[in-house]
Amino acid sequence: MTKQDLIAQIKLKKSFLCIGLDVDLNKIPEHLLATEDPIFEFNKQIIDATHHLAVAYKPNTAFYECYGLKGWQSLEKTINYLNKNHPEIFTIADAKRGDIGNTSTMYAKAFFDNMNFDSVTVAPYMGSDSVEPFLAFKDKFTIMLALTSNKGGLDFQAQQVSEDEKLYQNVLKQSLTWNNNEQLMYVVGATKAEYFKGIREIVPNHFLLVPGVGAQGGNLKDVCTYGLNDEVGLLINSSRGIIYASKSQGFAQVAQEKALELQTEMAAILIEKGIS
Amino acid sequence: MTKQDLIAQIKLKKSFLCIGLDVDLNKIPEHLLATEDPIFEFNKQIIDATHHLAVAYKPNTAFYECYGLKGWQSLEKTINYLNKNHPEIFTIADAKRGDIGNTSTMYAKAFFDNMNFDSVTVAPYMGSDSVEPFLAFKDKFTIMLALTSNKGGLDFQAQQVSEDEKLYQNVLKQSLTWNNNEQLMYVVGATKAEYFKGIREIVPNHFLLVPGVGAQGGNLKDVCTYGLNDEVGLLINSSRGIIYASKSQGFAQVAQEKALELQTEMAAILIEKGIS
Repeated sequence: MTKQDLIAQIKLKKSFLCIGLDVDLNKIPEHLLATEDPIFEFNKQIIDATHHLAVAYKPNTAFYECYGLKGWQSLEKTINYLNKNHPEIFTIADAKRGDIGNTSTMYAKAFFDNMNFDSVTVAPYMGSDSVEPFLAFKDKFTIMLALTSNKGGLDFQAQQVSEDEKLYQNVLKQSLTWNNNEQLMYVVGATKAEYFKGIREIVPNHFLLVPGVGAQGGNLKDVCTYGLNDEVGLLINSSRGIIYASKSQGFAQVAQEKALELQTEMAAILIEKGIS
Repeated sequence: MTKQDLIAQIKLKKSFLCIGLDVDLNKIPEHLLATEDPIFEFNKQIIDATHHLAVAYKPNTAFYECYGLKGWQSLEKTINYLNKNHPEIFTIADAKRGDIGNTSTMYAKAFFDNMNFDSVTVAPYMGSDSVEPFLAFKDKFTIMLALTSNKGGLDFQAQQVSEDEKLYQNVLKQSLTWNNNEQLMYVVGATKAEYFKGIREIVPNHFLLVPGVGAQGGNLKDVCTYGLNDEVGLLINSSRGIIYASKSQGFAQVAQEKALELQTEMAAILIEKGIS
């Protein structure tokens, strides 16, 4: 998928919502546990109920790996279902991978070639040659951790690496010199809305994937004030707030209502910003 | 496995060799490709030929993930084979994972509980609460990236975060304040032998996993001069130099010879250092 395809979809749906498919067997409706593949069944129903309101889905690989082979099978079925039935959707393997050159190529093959995800999240600690192998894949996007919303996020990311630069700012700046850096997006946590202004000064044009709206305390409006650019440039992720809104038989309907609330808010913001 | 078990094994075998099982179907002997599971067959023969010379095996998960479900099956068969036939071996899932708290717990379950690896490698970028969930597992070790041997390793790791401290040193220091930090080990690349002295000043007692001896240009003797401590404290990894030493029918025998060369060198170093 190209960046223009993604933007077109956002404008069509008036939504920049990403739904996180972090499926925990302890949290899904009990009636699904009797099905052959409860994780896939859960995802399928969530996707069926929300695909017109969301532009992206983001399964976090940890939630699949922890169930071993069966979990990987559920992940493959989920991505295949998305690619077959909703090819317009931007898919994100939230895997936070990263290794030396040829090994990163192996990870990229796993997610881009074999499973046909549109993007994968990576960690920057090992530097340029751990990320560039992902960037070499045409029409695929690499979403690099920049500033994360967890408690320990600031432990290293906020370290001052020069008088006027923190590590996450240095990560953003250096990444702009890498091969195919136009295929980069960045993870920026929503709990730090005041940081978005400075981040937009460094990366005005790249998409930012923003987790932490809702459950983790981030505010959509604040994020948009500083984070939106002329091509939208934001994907706002919500996981628990949507997919675990109800454990009833009608959980997918409730998830749809929660997604609609966010999409409605997003549509208003896009209109206000004059993006359509 | 406890740290004392690992040390006892090192003394018994007079070896602190770790063999990296980074299995690429394009590089293994062709006659194996006709077998039902070439990757596992390759690993099994390598393990059978070298287990008396090595104390640890380190499959890199990227090389398995890139073959999809079949690859994960090969990984599971490999770890099961090691745990069943060589329970004294220290096993490392080289996965470089790391995510927010509850998600890291999922990864830890995948590798520690389900597959019963003794350890897993993690990336530090997301900070304390991305690593502590791994450290909570009893008798399991978490091997955190500190200073890596790839070209881009210095991009961020060598950033100066204070007058006398680089990022990787800060990573080491902060990690010593985390819960269960005695379950930590660190990845330190061998191509930077001169850094080992300073690293040992920060973490005198922890084990260091050292890739990059051989193929990547690191020198075993230099690393040991600065890196060994009274409890050995080093695991030296070799992957390509051992497992791809030959593509012939007798590849495992050649791998054994290469492992023996390193083990012989290690035995001499241990004797010289008075560790036995």
